[in-house]
Amino acid sequence: MSTPCTICKLRNAVYARSYSGENLCARCFCRSIEKKVRATVAKHNLLRFDDKIAVAVSGGKDSIALLHIISKLEKSFPKAKLTAITVDEGIDRYRDEALSIATRSCQKLKINHVVASFKELFGYELDELVKRLPTLKTKHANLTPCSYCGVLRRRALNLLAMRCGATKLATGHNLDDEAQTVLLNLFHGAPLRITRARPASPESSSGTPFVQRIKPLCEILEKEAALYAYLEGLEFQNKECPYAGEALRNDMRFMLNRLEEKHPGMKYTVYHSGQKLRIPSGESVEWADLKTCKVCGEPAMATLCQPCKMLQMLGAEKS
Amino acid sequence: MSTPCTICKLRNAVYARSYSGENLCARCFCRSIEKKVRATVAKHNLLRFDDKIAVAVSGGKDSIALLHIISKLEKSFPKAKLTAITVDEGIDRYRDEALSIATRSCQKLKINHVVASFKELFGYELDELVKRLPTLKTKHANLTPCSYCGVLRRRALNLLAMRCGATKLATGHNLDDEAQTVLLNLFHGAPLRITRARPASPESSSGTPFVQRIKPLCEILEKEAALYAYLEGLEFQNKECPYAGEALRNDMRFMLNRLEEKHPGMKYTVYHSGQKLRIPSGESVEWADLKTCKVCGEPAMATLCQPCKMLQMLGAEKS
Repeated sequence: MSTPCTICKLRNAVYARSYSGENLCARCFCRSIEKKVRATVAKHNLLRFDDKIAVAVSGGKDSIALLHIISKLEKSFPKAKLTAITVDEGIDRYRDEALSIATRSCQKLKINHVVASFKELFGYELDELVKRLPTLKTKHANLTPCSYCGVLRRRALNLLAMRCGATKLATGHNLDDEAQTVLLNLFHGAPLRITRARPASPESSSGTPFVQRIKPLCEILEKEAALYAYLEGLEFQNKECPYAGEALRNDMRFMLNRLEEKHPGMKYTVYHSGQKLRIPSGESVEWADLKTCKVCGEPAMATLCQPCKMLQMLGAEKS
Repeated sequence: MSTPCTICKLRNAVYARSYSGENLCARCFCRSIEKKVRATVAKHNLLRFDDKIAVAVSGGKDSIALLHIISKLEKSFPKAKLTAITVDEGIDRYRDEALSIATRSCQKLKINHVVASFKELFGYELDELVKRLPTLKTKHANLTPCSYCGVLRRRALNLLAMRCGATKLATGHNLDDEAQTVLLNLFHGAPLRITRARPASPESSSGTPFVQRIKPLCEILEKEAALYAYLEGLEFQNKECPYAGEALRNDMRFMLNRLEEKHPGMKYTVYHSGQKLRIPSGESVEWADLKTCKVCGEPAMATLCQPCKMLQMLGAEKS
């Protein structure tokens, strides 16, 4: 037997939202997601009327949904400008597919699309880096493909956003990602990092070499982002990265999924707990300590920036 | 094939400590536990040379192990004095057995033993309170037997410790309890409470109505406390409380046990993450806000203390 939508009372529900008790039809569900993103943007002041927004688009469900929602949102900001940026890490038979999906999505939405590869930016494809990792592993046991990719992609996105003259860099991090990160930092013994994971990174004033990062989907459940993309008929890549993902993050994912099922709303509670943990003045210290990398001139916490340190480590193994 | 003990190299190992890679014989294992408790006491200044220590003894493995270890430790503090205190909550066919175990343990160790019951202190046995709970549940959905018992037992222990003139109240909370509490506070959306869970509560200066609580076993794994009690041939109650335990805490226990198995040392990391989250001046605020309960004269955060509020709620249902 079909259940009517709790909101419009007209159409049949296609989704039971357990944390609110609502049953939603496709249309009301999608509108609820857009409304929620709009609320997150307003609550945390994520966008200004004249922002130049670079949206990081990998081609997965989150970033495709984000691009779609932001392009709708942008219509309320006539002075804002939107560009999509994609980083090609160089992962054989994975990234190529995602890249063409990203390109087609941008064409459909008539959004300017900028692509750059790890190879072009850093001299190596991720596949090449990964081949060198086994020789490094004995010395740096913690360095998985994901740690390299994470650091380099972050830097690449910042470089691309700077090239576009962006004032904001929007990424597709969802509620699951954020809740996992809270737990991950706790289980890594780095709880003070929790206080850094915010819907927006510190504001980029003139002269600071980072484009402010914002996470408009940070209050959207992963499964709801996927359902949104599906119900809106968006094309996205469903394949998992061959480098799989960090072991401990997968444990956190499993744990949170299990708890969310038993206690709907739990992921939001964990994320929100993280938000409450603000260490006074913690963020400003970070900027004050910023140095300039002696190799690439990019911002760094030591004499070398993290990406250059990683690349140097790999270079050293070469000889 | 038997494995020799990593420490003495003489006796056969009975326990493989996965987080350190050691294999330990019974004797070296027990000494390692005592050494670790001694280290915790020293690191956090849990005991002074002339303390009057009240040890909360329920009769379970943790409190029996604690009593045993503290009585050994006390020998290095000739001016210290030890008393065991037990609260009889009034749980049919559960507490009676634990109570006689506690009494026998104290007799063996020649330690003074003071007992008081919920009935005597508050006018109700826990079994009676629990019978009234269903009528309350509609109004106060969160109040499980454990929430009542927790608040009242805490108060009862403080009252008993005061009666003994104790300067310290030692409880058997182990590493599992502490790690669970860190997660529990996060999953309850009360992360600032993490900053209050310390090996020692704020010091009780003259005039403050709380005896300082200390947790000497807070860095000992639950399974190691149990193994210690077993290997030392101590009598303890193994039965679970018929009121089972909080649902969410059980989820945290399951989760942490699963993760500890995959990544030995994880429980300690979570506990230690909690320790790192210190909110400046958080603790002193708590004392400053302290009022006096208008019913019992005990310390309270509002006009009524938590135990009196609970008892009044139950009384109101009576009529």
